[in-house]
Amino acid sequence: MPIERRKTRQVNIGGVTVGGDAPIRVQSMCSTPTGDVDATVDQILRLEEAGCEIVRVAVPDREAARALPTIKSRIHIPLVADIHFDYELALEAMMAGVDKVRINPGNVLVKQGWKGVEAVVEGARQHGVPIRIGVNSGSIETPLLKKYGSPTPEAAVESAMGHVKLLEELDFHDILISVKFSDVPRTVAAYQLLSRTTDYPLHLGVTEAGTSWSGTIKSAVGLGALLAEGIGDTVRVSLTTPDKAEEVRVAYEILKSLELRARGPVLTSCPTCGRTEVDLLALVHQVEEALSRVKTELHVAVMGCVVNGPGEAAGADLAVVGGKGAVALYRRGQFLRRVSEAEAGKALLEEIAAGLR
Amino acid sequence: MPIERRKTRQVNIGGVTVGGDAPIRVQSMCSTPTGDVDATVDQILRLEEAGCEIVRVAVPDREAARALPTIKSRIHIPLVADIHFDYELALEAMMAGVDKVRINPGNVLVKQGWKGVEAVVEGARQHGVPIRIGVNSGSIETPLLKKYGSPTPEAAVESAMGHVKLLEELDFHDILISVKFSDVPRTVAAYQLLSRTTDYPLHLGVTEAGTSWSGTIKSAVGLGALLAEGIGDTVRVSLTTPDKAEEVRVAYEILKSLELRARGPVLTSCPTCGRTEVDLLALVHQVEEALSRVKTELHVAVMGCVVNGPGEAAGADLAVVGGKGAVALYRRGQFLRRVSEAEAGKALLEEIAAGLR
Repeated sequence: MPIERRKTRQVNIGGVTVGGDAPIRVQSMCSTPTGDVDATVDQILRLEEAGCEIVRVAVPDREAARALPTIKSRIHIPLVADIHFDYELALEAMMAGVDKVRINPGNVLVKQGWKGVEAVVEGARQHGVPIRIGVNSGSIETPLLKKYGSPTPEAAVESAMGHVKLLEELDFHDILISVKFSDVPRTVAAYQLLSRTTDYPLHLGVTEAGTSWSGTIKSAVGLGALLAEGIGDTVRVSLTTPDKAEEVRVAYEILKSLELRARGPVLTSCPTCGRTEVDLLALVHQVEEALSRVKTELHVAVMGCVVNGPGEAAGADLAVVGGKGAVALYRRGQFLRRVSEAEAGKALLEEIAAGLR
Repeated sequence: MPIERRKTRQVNIGGVTVGGDAPIRVQSMCSTPTGDVDATVDQILRLEEAGCEIVRVAVPDREAARALPTIKSRIHIPLVADIHFDYELALEAMMAGVDKVRINPGNVLVKQGWKGVEAVVEGARQHGVPIRIGVNSGSIETPLLKKYGSPTPEAAVESAMGHVKLLEELDFHDILISVKFSDVPRTVAAYQLLSRTTDYPLHLGVTEAGTSWSGTIKSAVGLGALLAEGIGDTVRVSLTTPDKAEEVRVAYEILKSLELRARGPVLTSCPTCGRTEVDLLALVHQVEEALSRVKTELHVAVMGCVVNGPGEAAGADLAVVGGKGAVALYRRGQFLRRVSEAEAGKALLEEIAAGLR
């Protein structure tokens, strides 16, 4: 049962479509100082390798903006400039060829007046660059905080729609929106409300989710709950980790789990119990290692016993079911052959290869 | 905004309530051979330490059943016997003092006739032991597979309700239900349908979720999507891992992320970007290490820069915000003091201690 996605408009970020019927896009953000071109490009290339489709860099000052053309020339995915307050930086980034700008026009209005907003919109229009309005719980305007008493989902959505209105007044609709909180309940509630309010494509994220382990769980719960409802057009998993490619791997794993994106094999394996008659952990690791070289999209199941094994095997493209002293191989529920535990990985690869012919 | 939980009946599993207004319970299952009492008890004690509230063991044969009284006498949480087909094993487990039995009466009916079903129900009634009906995609009856063409969510729910009907015919209502699949979309759809169909408490799980990493993500997405809708009364995260306590830690982290259970501090930390002016990874690890000794429920934020830092700090009980050369401490948005990066963890612990006075 495929998830029915909410209908959104589509924007084009340097050739990568987001929203509408486009696949849900995976993006990330560099943790390097943008002015350090080599480090930034290096990180982006590693993100690309992991499957990152759009990458964002912070542009807090002129030095960062000056680095953008070189970065852009050395990478292969759309580049997004993350800018706060300063419309001139936004213009410089667009001149440098960035493919999207994240800037909140309301902030430009407050700090630099209406001419700043007009300049950003004119630049975006000229360069064909979409604008993401990115509201975070920590950046909601004081009047809205006073109105709602605290940074509530309603306050975040009202803030976002206020920024949208400024762009719409200038007849600009090339917009994406995010409303991120660092906790899951408010993130989910804010995007649910936003999705009922507007049809601009939504950029999902739980902000400052935390370290690898807890941030992965928080992102999987929050993004998972929204994606399962059909909400979200692009996702960014945000982890405090030295290896930013991990954000991309986690994002794909979330999307894969909901069958929204396919990427390599899906492995299911039983948690083992008192019925297990095989060294399942060793078997799973052997299979996982064998599958790490496989790019085909297929479902492989590794089961420890004959209780759920054969049933589960019926639903998998290939299954390895543990028994006494040997394992049984199944292809889509059909018994293939019995091999020793040690040969399971090799036999599986043979079957995958056979299936590709 | 607390999640509004669906109204379910309440059952009592050896003193631990599940369903109704009871907290969502965390459970796990042993991977040891149940007959190996020392290994099983050892694993259960480690699960208890991690916060496991109900533990299940497989009882595939007489040897396993004979181990139950000793296991029961050496642990401190309710014990559940997982039994397939054999009503005599179920009776033996109940005599041994287990607090719940997982058995599908339809299977007993097919293999051992109506007298087997009656015997199980009579035993459960006598011992005050609830029965969990556990349908897995791999164990759906052939007629239902034929009717639906494959193990669909509808087939699983119809299977579960068929088992329920047998118990209700004997006026037995001390029931929990699970309908697990190894993939998230069918798991979510099945529980959504089940929750609309019945008010018996629901035991959530994605079965055979996979290895630590992908199984954690799959469980967080699937259980998270359901819990966010208010569905689920007890959860079991199922991971192929040598350390079963990990299942419990992941379960709590999922529940914590949705603010359904509290357990120790919640840490949010920013993913770092080109604006970061502090060694945030080192800072976060220092804070994480300091917090690992803290049992208080509180929200601590670690932020790398002044853009989102102060705003995020306002929502946290305590916040550490990185700046140039030093970090700033905030308590519920109020600036406390500035300390060196090296002293951040120590200063945080001092503030926590101060708050407890």
